[in-house]
Amino acid sequence: MKFRRSERLIDMTNYLLEHPHQLVSLTYFSERYGSAKSSISEDLAIIKETFEHRGIGTLQTVPGAAGGVKYQVRMTEEDAQPIINQLCELIASPNRLLPGGYLYMTDILGDPMIVKQVGRLFASAYADKEIDVVMTVATKGIALAYAVANYLNVPVVIVRRDSKVTEGSTVSINYVSGSAKRIQTMVLSKRSLEEGSRVLIVDDFMKAGGTVNGMISMLEEFNAALVGIAVLVEAEKAEERLVDDYLSLVRLSDVDVKEKKINVTHGNYFTNKQVEGKS
Amino acid sequence: MKFRRSERLIDMTNYLLEHPHQLVSLTYFSERYGSAKSSISEDLAIIKETFEHRGIGTLQTVPGAAGGVKYQVRMTEEDAQPIINQLCELIASPNRLLPGGYLYMTDILGDPMIVKQVGRLFASAYADKEIDVVMTVATKGIALAYAVANYLNVPVVIVRRDSKVTEGSTVSINYVSGSAKRIQTMVLSKRSLEEGSRVLIVDDFMKAGGTVNGMISMLEEFNAALVGIAVLVEAEKAEERLVDDYLSLVRLSDVDVKEKKINVTHGNYFTNKQVEGKS
Repeated sequence: MKFRRSERLIDMTNYLLEHPHQLVSLTYFSERYGSAKSSISEDLAIIKETFEHRGIGTLQTVPGAAGGVKYQVRMTEEDAQPIINQLCELIASPNRLLPGGYLYMTDILGDPMIVKQVGRLFASAYADKEIDVVMTVATKGIALAYAVANYLNVPVVIVRRDSKVTEGSTVSINYVSGSAKRIQTMVLSKRSLEEGSRVLIVDDFMKAGGTVNGMISMLEEFNAALVGIAVLVEAEKAEERLVDDYLSLVRLSDVDVKEKKINVTHGNYFTNKQVEGKS
Repeated sequence: MKFRRSERLIDMTNYLLEHPHQLVSLTYFSERYGSAKSSISEDLAIIKETFEHRGIGTLQTVPGAAGGVKYQVRMTEEDAQPIINQLCELIASPNRLLPGGYLYMTDILGDPMIVKQVGRLFASAYADKEIDVVMTVATKGIALAYAVANYLNVPVVIVRRDSKVTEGSTVSINYVSGSAKRIQTMVLSKRSLEEGSRVLIVDDFMKAGGTVNGMISMLEEFNAALVGIAVLVEAEKAEERLVDDYLSLVRLSDVDVKEKKINVTHGNYFTNKQVEGKS
């Protein structure tokens, strides 16, 4: 076995993983290794097969002079199931319960491995959508937003509760928080979102959806388009859900503070993802 | 060439990249592929050579029954130089200047590719240190903190300006902001940091170092140990720097709001990294 090919396979794997959702031309690889395009094509076929076999993702081939390959994360239901199961188990732990029925999730959101997995799941669900930017609101959703954006290779835009001098001029909107029915404010730096951007909203938790709804109003201010909404945890008890079409990994169906019990089920990831895929 | 080995090389590369700073036993790989340990050893030798040759990182081999390999990101000065140059160029752009001499950096911090590179640089500088957790303060530093933590495979802890119900009980401290000399507060969830943790502080910007100093005081409250401080940009004009030992990628040496000029040089990454390495 030639060392040359081994080295190419290892380096190309790293390169593709580091540049997801980006078209890489055969010429680029051919020049990088001083190898014929036919060899590069063979390498890519092996990488594609392995990526798909091992659940790493897929290589999309774009033929023609301007063509090349594009790595996309792709998770099968078989790969996703154990991750979501694990998340459910983690979240159902009774010592997460805080006064007022809130849930402590800081440790989960602080674990880069978990955050990465959640990012993979969401990026995989939206891999076929045209997305220009991932939006979230400070602070808890930020890590998840970056994890998704990493795999989709798009920038992150962070909506804030208060404006800061370092943001430059901002657009500010008022919205009604869904559960508490209070008027709240959110701001976004004017420079940070281009008109007409196609936006995926990512957040850690959704109750009635007031905050997500606020972000949707913000999108309107920027003439941006909503492509999807992805949340890690949704609370079921929202009688008046303000948002319909979203993806969730985990659903809190019942939180009993007195009995210290949290009931957790799968979110709508598997059911809604298919709908997403069809549209 | 056997397909078997190709597949192993590709999948092992992905696996190692996804599990940095984690000891993976030969047995694990041997069972994963149903291959002899001798073949796995040969594969790892090829991967190690390629990783080092291509600047991806290094594989540390731990011999013995409990041994295995550990992937660590490792950047040579040659790889780091162009990244820091590019950062300097980006930051020196005059249209970043905001009223009051502040700099707009939201676009830089919102770009996952840049954030990842910064994460690689810092993780590489602290690869040999024992680090249990990366700490930052909300909001701007969060993305950088996760990027570093991803490569070091440790959790992130986020200090906040205000306490939130979802954090549970918190420890709160007052500190003096270095430049404005105002008393400010920061809080950290009690559960989020274990006693005795070894902490790397990461932030996007350091002027006099008041905020970083506040985080150091917070560490004392948790009996945690400071291992290092890494900032993307430092402002030079800090006559009374409150913090001495830190790593920076970019130094703002002069911001002239009237002339719309920003003077930018390399931070102390190359000079201080060596000192770090020796200790």
